[in-house]
Amino acid sequence: MVATPGGFLYEHLADELVHAIDRGSLRAGDRLPSVRRLAQERSVSVSTVLEAYLQLENAGLIEVRPKSGHFVRRRAAPAPASEPRVPRPVVKPSRVTVSDAYTRVLAAMRDPSLVPLGCATVDAAYLPIAQINRIITQVTREMVTVGARYEAAPGLLTLRRQIARRAVESGMTLAEDDLCTTIGATEGLSLALLAVARPGDVIAVESPAYFGVLQTIEGLNLRAIEIPANPRTGLDVSAFEETIRQQRVAAVVVTPTISNPLGAIMPDEERERLVRIAKRADIPIIEDDVYGELVFDGTRPRPLRAYDDEIVVHVSSVSKTLAPGYRVGWIAGGRWHDQIVRKKYSHSLACPALLGMAVAEFLASGGYDRHLRRLRGVLAGNVERYREGILEEFPDGTRVSSPRGGFVLWVELPPGGDALALHEAALRRGIVVAPGPLFSARQRFGNYIRISAGTPWDERIAASIRTLGRLAAKE
Amino acid sequence: MVATPGGFLYEHLADELVHAIDRGSLRAGDRLPSVRRLAQERSVSVSTVLEAYLQLENAGLIEVRPKSGHFVRRRAAPAPASEPRVPRPVVKPSRVTVSDAYTRVLAAMRDPSLVPLGCATVDAAYLPIAQINRIITQVTREMVTVGARYEAAPGLLTLRRQIARRAVESGMTLAEDDLCTTIGATEGLSLALLAVARPGDVIAVESPAYFGVLQTIEGLNLRAIEIPANPRTGLDVSAFEETIRQQRVAAVVVTPTISNPLGAIMPDEERERLVRIAKRADIPIIEDDVYGELVFDGTRPRPLRAYDDEIVVHVSSVSKTLAPGYRVGWIAGGRWHDQIVRKKYSHSLACPALLGMAVAEFLASGGYDRHLRRLRGVLAGNVERYREGILEEFPDGTRVSSPRGGFVLWVELPPGGDALALHEAALRRGIVVAPGPLFSARQRFGNYIRISAGTPWDERIAASIRTLGRLAAKE
Repeated sequence: MVATPGGFLYEHLADELVHAIDRGSLRAGDRLPSVRRLAQERSVSVSTVLEAYLQLENAGLIEVRPKSGHFVRRRAAPAPASEPRVPRPVVKPSRVTVSDAYTRVLAAMRDPSLVPLGCATVDAAYLPIAQINRIITQVTREMVTVGARYEAAPGLLTLRRQIARRAVESGMTLAEDDLCTTIGATEGLSLALLAVARPGDVIAVESPAYFGVLQTIEGLNLRAIEIPANPRTGLDVSAFEETIRQQRVAAVVVTPTISNPLGAIMPDEERERLVRIAKRADIPIIEDDVYGELVFDGTRPRPLRAYDDEIVVHVSSVSKTLAPGYRVGWIAGGRWHDQIVRKKYSHSLACPALLGMAVAEFLASGGYDRHLRRLRGVLAGNVERYREGILEEFPDGTRVSSPRGGFVLWVELPPGGDALALHEAALRRGIVVAPGPLFSARQRFGNYIRISAGTPWDERIAASIRTLGRLAAKE
Repeated sequence: MVATPGGFLYEHLADELVHAIDRGSLRAGDRLPSVRRLAQERSVSVSTVLEAYLQLENAGLIEVRPKSGHFVRRRAAPAPASEPRVPRPVVKPSRVTVSDAYTRVLAAMRDPSLVPLGCATVDAAYLPIAQINRIITQVTREMVTVGARYEAAPGLLTLRRQIARRAVESGMTLAEDDLCTTIGATEGLSLALLAVARPGDVIAVESPAYFGVLQTIEGLNLRAIEIPANPRTGLDVSAFEETIRQQRVAAVVVTPTISNPLGAIMPDEERERLVRIAKRADIPIIEDDVYGELVFDGTRPRPLRAYDDEIVVHVSSVSKTLAPGYRVGWIAGGRWHDQIVRKKYSHSLACPALLGMAVAEFLASGGYDRHLRRLRGVLAGNVERYREGILEEFPDGTRVSSPRGGFVLWVELPPGGDALALHEAALRRGIVVAPGPLFSARQRFGNYIRISAGTPWDERIAASIRTLGRLAAKE
């Protein structure tokens, strides 16, 4: 019934190329990559690339020059050669809202022509996706009706069992019945906030905080209050204590192990103290643990959930370590477990069974820990290399975080540096960084940017860091 | 790296069997299906079944009797043979809340030992899942990094393009840029309500309404007002007009083509009138079109979105027609498109790229219309057969809807019939039906049940309908 095997893939590739031409990252006269090279780079067959090129040729966008290869055709009004074209007029920094920047950082995830220093994702080359895909093939062969299964909340039992098994190893007392599967950790955060807070409530967050958390708070008509966080030790527990003395706080969202963007790790005694204070005040803690497995030296601290299984709602996923695109996450809702399961029904009903099964099987296979050891080593190297690059290329007075895990760097520009302007200028050169104000509900951190070191260091990255440094000196 | 190929599958099967024993649908002394038969039924290999049986044997739950097969072992305190055991004390009808019934109907989706007359899903045998799975295998082979791709909102371009193409055929002027992909239609409904309404707002719904809509309204701290609906012509537009004259309504959620549970189709002139009235009052219409492709005679009416592309938010999925478990849905947000895309970020960020790609490829292949023609024919036959069965076996005075599409029947019990009691009694016999009060925010329809005809008619179904009829006569 599938008329054109692979038809979809060449169409997909053609789309990306059209997009690259549209936005000017491929310009008139530019030579396209050789068929063989692109096939290799994109892990598709040569015939898929040929089909895509043929489609673009038919559309008049590219031309073949004998013995030379494929070239982007000149158009009626050629763009100036010195600068990539942009589809829309350049927006002045002052007019850039944080939400615009947010949308762009996310859009960059889908645009392969941009240098991805803005998104906290790990390059596909570091992930065992091929193995998971083999399991997917195996599952679809063995269990042909898998696509018909609604794995309604709390979701796939075997996945919950594997997650519980690993959780116990990290010091939590979690059983499969304490868990509900989610569409990535994002849905987990959303469900947790829906369950513990009412519209208008105030949620305490780290400052700086992961921008997704701030967006979710805004999206659910909640309000955020920022608690200072230290680049080494994370959330300032004393400041939190002071805040809840002064005002009603419905919950606190915290990433105790490798916070984002700081890369901080809360010391054990601060964890214990935070849980004690929150428990006494009966304030739910929503713990985001997506980076928990990525502490470089492998010494995973005990999650907050290990200190209390009532008021700590634990949220995590495999998006930072296995397969971002498969959206496999989970939540241990503590006292709110039943409400969270109910919210999940109305939020999205069920998670795709097939992808959950594949991840469960991978976790069961024992290969995960081996993979994590390797990944941690690679990321530690990346973070060091990126860090050196930034310190070399950025203007004097630039400060860079020194995280003990994960793969993002928090960069403080010299006084007067304008992160939003830098973000815009970089984007015009095909480079995405995440500007500091994204990480604050009050748009603070105007002279900070977050740079992701999830992509292998190479000449393109080196050049991008140089460009960023040059731009930072100007802005 | 995968240590035990297929290991996951036998574990999964073993779980299901343990569950069946726990809840008493397999009782002490019962003979288990032969290895070959179960392998065939569940589309797994013989060795997978053998592994599962071995695991249960090791756990002391079943035993092998030479030349006879596998049997459930007697336990210390055997349950009475006449009735299946239930893990918890039986809840009296009066104590059953609608949310409990809702949870059970959903749980039944995951329990293969129950007769699935409660869930509006189509049996796997009717769906082209094998073909989609072949595409999945092909995509994972050709595009090995697919698992790493975040297809952040608005989601996969090629999928949106295929959906737009089909939409245009049904009379809507939709382009790929008008669409955002979602986790099934459930997430679409949730995003639509988040975008158009504020907490506390009143949402107009059909009465009876699909229970998922009511749960979502409750989950988002909104309120529902019920507008009467006719089993043939759907939403009473005059009643809607009267309602909005009397009070502020933030939106109306309606399923104009094959409503659920009624199976009604709104006539064209009523569609036009509803859109005109809503537009004049500036009230968004959220159109649930998941059954749109399942009108038996193939005459798909023009969706409401075809009448207006500003105030109509159109929500749909392939869950009723292709692969419920892959959670591929979409939303055309009209005037609220940008807000909906933003809400999607914080709701779940992205949909799994792989499953969207497979569905897009299937839609592009041209096989979908052929499949739909066959499916409509099969479901029309099912609905007729179930309807006859109900009219034969249920007590005199029972009334059954006569839908022109879809696969659910709305059954009115004779006066005094108690749907919640019937639901409970049926569940004790391993049969799930959806009780009427689920379909009303005010728990009306106390003497109605919804029966799904999505499973092939066979002896087990016939016996279940007989059992239901007998119970209905008693309750």
